[in-house]
Amino acid sequence: MKKFEEKTIHTEKIYEGKVVHVQVDQVKLPNGKESTRELIKHPGAVSIIPITKENKIIFVEQYRKPLEKSLVEIPAGKLEPGENPEVTAIRELEEETGYTTKELSFVSSFYTSPGFADELMHIYMAKNLEIVDQPLLPDEDEFVEVVELSLEEAKAYVREERIHDAKTNYAILYLEMLERM
Amino acid sequence: MKKFEEKTIHTEKIYEGKVVHVQVDQVKLPNGKESTRELIKHPGAVSIIPITKENKIIFVEQYRKPLEKSLVEIPAGKLEPGENPEVTAIRELEEETGYTTKELSFVSSFYTSPGFADELMHIYMAKNLEIVDQPLLPDEDEFVEVVELSLEEAKAYVREERIHDAKTNYAILYLEMLERM
Repeated sequence: MKKFEEKTIHTEKIYEGKVVHVQVDQVKLPNGKESTRELIKHPGAVSIIPITKENKIIFVEQYRKPLEKSLVEIPAGKLEPGENPEVTAIRELEEETGYTTKELSFVSSFYTSPGFADELMHIYMAKNLEIVDQPLLPDEDEFVEVVELSLEEAKAYVREERIHDAKTNYAILYLEMLERM
Repeated sequence: MKKFEEKTIHTEKIYEGKVVHVQVDQVKLPNGKESTRELIKHPGAVSIIPITKENKIIFVEQYRKPLEKSLVEIPAGKLEPGENPEVTAIRELEEETGYTTKELSFVSSFYTSPGFADELMHIYMAKNLEIVDQPLLPDEDEFVEVVELSLEEAKAYVREERIHDAKTNYAILYLEMLERM
């Protein structure tokens, strides 16, 4: 869909980081006038809703520097260039929780913040989890703690805003929905 | 919650835009080592789920430059500094749809992408909509088209990925959930 397309007149690269690239585009608007758009380029991400045999959900708690606090979230990670999201999902699940699965199913995908960023988040559910003997480790600058919660406990975490991000709030609403189907 | 806190050693301001500020922090990790964090500062945003008397949901279609395509989304906008999110919600509803409401209720809030951005999204539901005679207009570089859909139609848009962003996918799941309660 290209309704109200904004044609790029000029692109200025501002910053190329490890995670994000920042650019400012000069654009021609549908009415012929010009404006600027600030764009954050991101490789995309994958998150996993891991469900144990005891029907608990596995979360990870980690410090989020942009917020200067820690959040409890479903496990997640960035896509490597050209990587299939299912491969990312299995790797991140193992790195962050020590579990793997042969039962991965697609839940949903969405752009997290389409006004300024192109990050696409893919969400999967992982069932029939198996413990990995010598699991892959998280990146060396990544510190996470595993938290297992029932759905009721997770809903309480949402109310307390210890769970407070788009993919995890979506995941919990999705699990509530499944319970009612 | 400060688990695994990362203390800031040094902050480098990279870019100050209209919408986002970009900075790179040098941090001290919990194990004493150092790393860098790329941070996108955003003023926060508000979105509204407007429900008409005929039980349709009002969306807006707009071009999203970061994605180079248009999406159908619930109406939304950025917070002005220090602004109460309910005030933003009423203003954005009027600007983007021409409706106002005296019946605004809080649905949820979440960080859209806590790994690299501090944007907090507040979601409200608006019922008992009233047409505004001479509504506020959208910003002069903002082009939106109103789209009214039933919940079933909106779910089809999700499947076709014409609706494909965090706040709108969440809103539709929330409305599905309400139908089952």
